[in-house]
Amino acid sequence: MYLIGGTMMSEENTVYIGSKPLMNYVLAVVTQMNNGTSEVMLKARGRSISRAVDVAEVVKNKFVLEAEVGEINISTEELSNREGSNTNVSAIEIQLTNK
Amino acid sequence: MYLIGGTMMSEENTVYIGSKPLMNYVLAVVTQMNNGTSEVMLKARGRSISRAVDVAEVVKNKFVLEAEVGEINISTEELSNREGSNTNVSAIEIQLTNK
Repeated sequence: MYLIGGTMMSEENTVYIGSKPLMNYVLAVVTQMNNGTSEVMLKARGRSISRAVDVAEVVKNKFVLEAEVGEINISTEELSNREGSNTNVSAIEIQLTNK
Repeated sequence: MYLIGGTMMSEENTVYIGSKPLMNYVLAVVTQMNNGTSEVMLKARGRSISRAVDVAEVVKNKFVLEAEVGEINISTEELSNREGSNTNVSAIEIQLTNK
């Protein structure tokens, strides 16, 4: 794991979208693509799902005009809290490709 | 347009996801599918995008087990407010099919 603009990145070109300002994540994706990465995966859970869609749209429409949205997958993840009980949370994965 | 559980439906089997409780929208989709509709489209904008993903996941995992998520599309829509200025908002469309 390393950091770009304070945003967590994994080795596999995945950007995890959380509750930071939108542009942090946009910068992380654009930096990756400018470094020659042809595919970046955005992952988000719960309320951050809307922000992940915003990141994909802003990158594509304002910063990397040749980028395209690839496959989008949604799923349910089970989280266990400190009391040991489980909650279900929705998740999204958005593939962004730069040809 | 007609209403199921207070939820707006169009003729084309589209459920517009807004800020009502999750189960209102789940009920709308399940009712449609129980009436023989093989494809329901969920549409949401802005912060409701996360709820649209929740609706799809809950329908598929709890109510209509044979339902599948089909194509998912994201886009940007331009809204004009009362002052006449325009704002961009992200949107999602999730296709749910019941075979």
